[in-house]
Amino acid sequence: MKLIILQEKLKKGINFIERISSRSLTLPILNNVLISTEKNFLNLATTDLEIGIRWWGLTKIEKQGKTTVPARLLSGFINLLPNKKIDLETKNNDLFLSCENHQTQIKGISADEFPIIPKIEEGETISINSKDLCKGINQIVDIAVPSITKPEISGLLFFLEGKQITLVATDSFRLGEKKIFLKKKPSSQKEISIIIPQKAAKEITNIFSEVDKELKIYFSPNQIMFELGMEETPHPEIQLISRLIEGEYPNYQEIIPKKNTTQIILEKDDFLNQIKSASLFSGKVNEVKVKVDPKKKEIEIFSQNPEVGEYKSSVPGKIKGEACEVSFNHRFLMDGLTSIRSAEVSFELNKDSGPGVLKPIGDESYVYVVMPIKGS
Amino acid sequence: MKLIILQEKLKKGINFIERISSRSLTLPILNNVLISTEKNFLNLATTDLEIGIRWWGLTKIEKQGKTTVPARLLSGFINLLPNKKIDLETKNNDLFLSCENHQTQIKGISADEFPIIPKIEEGETISINSKDLCKGINQIVDIAVPSITKPEISGLLFFLEGKQITLVATDSFRLGEKKIFLKKKPSSQKEISIIIPQKAAKEITNIFSEVDKELKIYFSPNQIMFELGMEETPHPEIQLISRLIEGEYPNYQEIIPKKNTTQIILEKDDFLNQIKSASLFSGKVNEVKVKVDPKKKEIEIFSQNPEVGEYKSSVPGKIKGEACEVSFNHRFLMDGLTSIRSAEVSFELNKDSGPGVLKPIGDESYVYVVMPIKGS
Repeated sequence: MKLIILQEKLKKGINFIERISSRSLTLPILNNVLISTEKNFLNLATTDLEIGIRWWGLTKIEKQGKTTVPARLLSGFINLLPNKKIDLETKNNDLFLSCENHQTQIKGISADEFPIIPKIEEGETISINSKDLCKGINQIVDIAVPSITKPEISGLLFFLEGKQITLVATDSFRLGEKKIFLKKKPSSQKEISIIIPQKAAKEITNIFSEVDKELKIYFSPNQIMFELGMEETPHPEIQLISRLIEGEYPNYQEIIPKKNTTQIILEKDDFLNQIKSASLFSGKVNEVKVKVDPKKKEIEIFSQNPEVGEYKSSVPGKIKGEACEVSFNHRFLMDGLTSIRSAEVSFELNKDSGPGVLKPIGDESYVYVVMPIKGS
Repeated sequence: MKLIILQEKLKKGINFIERISSRSLTLPILNNVLISTEKNFLNLATTDLEIGIRWWGLTKIEKQGKTTVPARLLSGFINLLPNKKIDLETKNNDLFLSCENHQTQIKGISADEFPIIPKIEEGETISINSKDLCKGINQIVDIAVPSITKPEISGLLFFLEGKQITLVATDSFRLGEKKIFLKKKPSSQKEISIIIPQKAAKEITNIFSEVDKELKIYFSPNQIMFELGMEETPHPEIQLISRLIEGEYPNYQEIIPKKNTTQIILEKDDFLNQIKSASLFSGKVNEVKVKVDPKKKEIEIFSQNPEVGEYKSSVPGKIKGEACEVSFNHRFLMDGLTSIRSAEVSFELNKDSGPGVLKPIGDESYVYVVMPIKGS
């Protein structure tokens, strides 16, 4: 392999794919980036066996070839070079780079040892705005938790029905549901219900949230692929492919209350700030109590810890419905409020022991459900 | 105790003193801040038994008194409050705070259990600009290392002679020496040579680097105190008092080479960048080789690691003196270059195995000495 590429272009490519390279001691090839040429494209690829990322850059190829070198070393080195032309050449499996007065030789491992990253070439495809998708994922992705007994909730439900995608995550103490609407109808009318691993969902937002373009999503029975096209040609620039989590996602809709006994409209930042203050005085189960009296124009917040002291405050709000007193884990309430972007929030309660619901005012696409702490 | 204070003022005070409170399990009182009144001043104090910090704020005191409460809890809480009046009151040892709709009770421990922070009221004093002192400390403070066999080098030498302060730190692999000049002569002409613990030196920069005022330094045989005055009155606003490290600082001047066999003038950022690149390819002892040939207009930089690969580059420079080849630990070279603020640096070598010296061009007040890696 022999080629010339601008530092800026190579830096962009390596920074996209570098993150996924693992620090595997048992399988050192996973630390490496696969560098190969395809006609007049340089291709970089990394994988952790669950997720694979490929990047292509149009450049001047003098001689086709391929090798693999440590991804973090290459990335660290490329990032320090000036934005000039870089000569890349392979000899045996080693990579020789020269750029102005810098010359380096990086020990490589044969490309034949690099695991095959699957491709999806047939099946359902849809097109979605990358920013819409990434914003939606970001609202719920941190709710999911690794679980051995319930592997389904280690991932995000991705449910496609007509022009609507529903994303769901839960850790069984709280649940987030986000709806995203497609501009174009998918290629077929079939419903698709899959579970995407949390790590893959996070990588999608890391890679695609900076661009504001249409992403193509390809579905296969065991894999999902997200693809961004190049500006200058119809060739893909980045592909992220992930295996799916097998199994059926819990019937989460049962958990979202259909109605409420009390509804409060609050200023989000004010409410969040008071929960933060109250959290300093809460006990071992992170308990913060919310007391609502529809005769008042504010809700009361309490917390106490026999070792630390106690806290009491109030937040002005518009209250409808019944009086109630409910305790929540302050961390779960704060997470829910942080995931909401509107200035006002609707906080819906169901008597003293039913789940609480947070919804942004003026945005029907997002719901956050939080279980109360019972018996307090 | 009963008083009223503005949130902004109390926040400023608590943020100054909070950092030094430890998380001591054996002596829980050290986690606490001592809150007391002195005439019309509120006084906050924390200590870790090595360093003590006191802050005073002029305010409206209704009733004198004192108590101690957990410093981090108080600070976390005060920081979240709005900038309004806070009512502070003690009952038994507990602290009751109320601010707008927030009310809290914080469990306290009797002020009688709080360790006495010593005062220095007599002895030598000098006056120094806080920014000059903090900048000087920052250039060398990270060089010092905790050492049980040589406790002296766990601290910074502070040597006062006439109008000149010399600060020195070393870990026996490298050494930094910084001279600071006083505007006013000290109260007596006695030389003072003391060793300040590294942690105290770091706290000085944390606390005083944001202000650009005259600091008073008080000396006693076992303690040093740094004091910042209040704007509105002659009363002190902040005092940091630290114990000193006993013993005699090593005769470091022997280590600083009086002459050199080779001198190179280099662009600092260019040199630093090349050492960073070379560091990626260096081996287990962090070795980077510098090769100088006075016939050339550049120095060469090499590194290699049989497992990773090798690196070669050059940096343009003005060379005087003999040819030589010296290996250094890249981390020590980078630390030295980072501590220098001038655009150009003088890099002085002493044959193939003598120490290297880095000096900023146009600034005689700073010297950084780095030992070579021998036998390579």
